Amino acid sequence: MIEIERKFLVKSNTYRLKAFQETRISQGFLNTHPERTVRIRIMGYGAFITIKGKSSSDGLQRYEWEKEIDVTDAEDLLKLCEPGIIEKQRYLVKHGKHIFEIDEFSGENDGLVVAEVELNHLSEEIEPPAWLGEEVTGQTKYYNSQLIKNPYRNWK
Amino acid sequence: MIEIERKFLVKSNTYRLKAFQETRISQGFLNTHPERTVRIRIMGYGAFITIKGKSSSDGLQRYEWEKEIDVTDAEDLLKLCEPGIIEKQRYLVKHGKHIFEIDEFSGENDGLVVAEVELNHLSEEIEPPAWLGEEVTGQTKYYNSQLIKNPYRNWK
Repeated sequence: MIEIERKFLVKSNTYRLKAFQETRISQGFLNTHPERTVRIRIMGYGAFITIKGKSSSDGLQRYEWEKEIDVTDAEDLLKLCEPGIIEKQRYLVKHGKHIFEIDEFSGENDGLVVAEVELNHLSEEIEPPAWLGEEVTGQTKYYNSQLIKNPYRNWK
Repeated sequence: MIEIERKFLVKSNTYRLKAFQETRISQGFLNTHPERTVRIRIMGYGAFITIKGKSSSDGLQRYEWEKEIDVTDAEDLLKLCEPGIIEKQRYLVKHGKHIFEIDEFSGENDGLVVAEVELNHLSEEIEPPAWLGEEVTGQTKYYNSQLIKNPYRNWK
C-alpha cells in the first residue's frame, strides 16, 4: 500500500493536553537502506514488522507493508537489529479531519519531537493546529531509520 | 528459534526418483547483511517472510523466524528486494529419519544443486544417501543471500 504522509516539527507541547492516546514505542531496524527498510516495533498494545520502500521525490509517498507479530518474537528480532534502538513516546491528537501522531524521542534522540499526519490523497489540505511547526516532509535526517545512524544528539 | 542445518553438494540427480514433493521457489532479499537477512519467498503453496541471524562459527546453527504472508503482498515485496531474484526447483526426499531438501537453481545460478538437512540436535547422525556429495556447511558462498551478489555463473 502507498502511504501519503507529511511531517512537521512542533512549536510547543500543548498537543499533550489534546491527546486521546499515549503509547510507548521501542523500535529497531533490520535494514536501514534508503530503498527498503525493515522495522521491528513494540508498542503498548502489540508488535509489528513494517517494510517501507523508497520515498517519492517530494517525500510525500512511500510504499508500506505491515503485519502484526508476537511480542516475544519481536523481542528476539529487536536483538538482531542494527545497533541503536529508537525509544519514543507517541501522542495521538485529532484536529479537524486528521489524526496527528506526535513522537517525543528519548535516549540518543532526546529533545527531538516530530508530528506526522497521514493524508488520503496528495492534494488534501490540513488545518494546522497552533502547536504545529516547520514542515520537514522528505528530509531524510528525520527518518527513524536515519536517526539510528545519526541521532539528534549529534546534529548540533 | 535456532535451526541446526547441514548443507551438501550432490553427486547425481537420482534424488529426483525418490522425491515425494517438488516445488518451484522464487525468492528475494530485503537485506543480505551477514548478521541479519530478510527473505521474501513465494512457493507453490504460499508465501513467507523469513528473518535469519548470523550463523554460529561452525556454520551449523542459526536463528530463524518465519511467518506466512499473502502471495499478493509477497509479489509487491519481491519488487522491493535487492536486485537479483533466486529461482529454484526444490525436491523433498525422505531418507532414514531425515527429510533432505534438494534445490536445483536456475537463472544466474544454473548448474548449482545443494541438499540441506535439518537436525534436531548438534550431534545427530545422518545416514547419507548414495547421491549425497561433499559437505559445504558454513561456506557462506552457498548462502542464497550471497548467491544474489555472487551467482554460481561467476564462480568459474
